[in-house]
Amino acid sequence: MSAKSDGTRLEAQFAFLNEADRLKSVLRATTLCDGSRRENSGEHSWHLALYALVLADQAAPGVNISRVIKMLLVHDLVEIDVGDVPIHSANGLAHASTDTQAAESRAADRIFGLLPNDLRDDLRAIWEEFEAAETPDAIFAKSLDRVQPVMANLQSGGGTWITYSVTAEQLESRVGSKIAKGAPRLWEWVREKTHRFFR
Amino acid sequence: MSAKSDGTRLEAQFAFLNEADRLKSVLRATTLCDGSRRENSGEHSWHLALYALVLADQAAPGVNISRVIKMLLVHDLVEIDVGDVPIHSANGLAHASTDTQAAESRAADRIFGLLPNDLRDDLRAIWEEFEAAETPDAIFAKSLDRVQPVMANLQSGGGTWITYSVTAEQLESRVGSKIAKGAPRLWEWVREKTHRFFR
Repeated sequence: MSAKSDGTRLEAQFAFLNEADRLKSVLRATTLCDGSRRENSGEHSWHLALYALVLADQAAPGVNISRVIKMLLVHDLVEIDVGDVPIHSANGLAHASTDTQAAESRAADRIFGLLPNDLRDDLRAIWEEFEAAETPDAIFAKSLDRVQPVMANLQSGGGTWITYSVTAEQLESRVGSKIAKGAPRLWEWVREKTHRFFR
Repeated sequence: MSAKSDGTRLEAQFAFLNEADRLKSVLRATTLCDGSRRENSGEHSWHLALYALVLADQAAPGVNISRVIKMLLVHDLVEIDVGDVPIHSANGLAHASTDTQAAESRAADRIFGLLPNDLRDDLRAIWEEFEAAETPDAIFAKSLDRVQPVMANLQSGGGTWITYSVTAEQLESRVGSKIAKGAPRLWEWVREKTHRFFR
C-alpha cells in the first residue's frame, strides 16, 4: 500500500476509533458492583468480553469465542447516538421497540460508516448478527449481555430490580430466558442466587 | 461435569469477574478524547481491544489478533491492586521500576489466583507474555497500548504532555519507539500529527 492511500485509510480508522470514545460517556441503568456510580457502556463492553473469555466453557459446542468477543466489543456502539435503553424501562417494552430498532440502524449506518469499506462491512455484519440473536455465537453473546447486569445487581443489593420494581416473572421472561437460551447451566446457577431479592 | 463441581467452578469464575469490576474505578492520567474526565482502566481496555480489531492491518505478518485482544482484555487487571502508573510520571522512571514490577506480580498472584486453575494459568501466562513484550503478539499489543493515549492527547488538546511537560525527545523514547516497534507505519503517521504540540 502506498504511503498516501495508507494515510487515507488510517484517517478513516481513527475517525471511527475516536468516535467510539464517546461510548465511555453513555450511562447505563446498572451501577458498578460496589454501587458507587452508574456503569458506562464502554467499560460494560470490556467486562462482557472478559466474561466471554472466562465463561467459554458455558457455551454450546461450536461457539467461536473469538467471534463472540468481537461481537461484544462492538455490540453497544449504536448507543453513542441512541443511548442505552434499559431492559426493565417502560415496563420492559422500550428495549426492542420498532422505534428503538430503527434509530439503532441509523446509528449503525453513521458510526460503522466512518470506517474503510471492508471494515465497515465486517463490523456492521457482526453487529447485525448480534442483534438478530439467531446464530450460536450471537445467542451466547446475548446470554452474557443479560447475565452481567444480574451479577452487578446481586453485588450492589438489588440495583435496577428495585429501581424498576421488577418481579420474579419479569426477571425470568426479560432476562432469565435469554441467559438460558445460550447458557442454560449458567442461568440455573445464577437464578438460585436471585431468589432472596424476589420473595 | 456434575452440578456440584460446576457450581464450585462458577463460584471461582465469578469471584474473578466480580473482582475485575474494580478496574472500572482505577483512574488513568489520560482523559477521554473530549477532556471531560479522566479515563478508567476498564474502558481503556475495551478501547484498546477495539483498536486491535480495527488496526489489525498495521500488525506484522503472523500476529494473531484474537490473542492480542485476549492480552489487552487482561493487561491492566493488576492495576486493581497497584493503580495506574502513568508513563510520563516521575520523569518517566516509575512505570517500569523494580518496585512497580514486584507489586504487579503480587497483584497477578492474587487476582488471577481467584480463577479455577486452568483459567488462572492461561490468563496469567498471557499477561506475563504482554509484560515481557517479546513475542510478535505482545509487541503489537504494546504498540496499541502506547498509541491510544497519544490519540486522546491529540483530541483533548495536549493532555498528559502538558501535565508532565513532556518534550519531543521524551515522547519519542517513552512512547514513539514502542509504537514503532510493533506498528512502524502507524507511528510515522501519528508522529506527524503530534508535531504542533512539540515546537
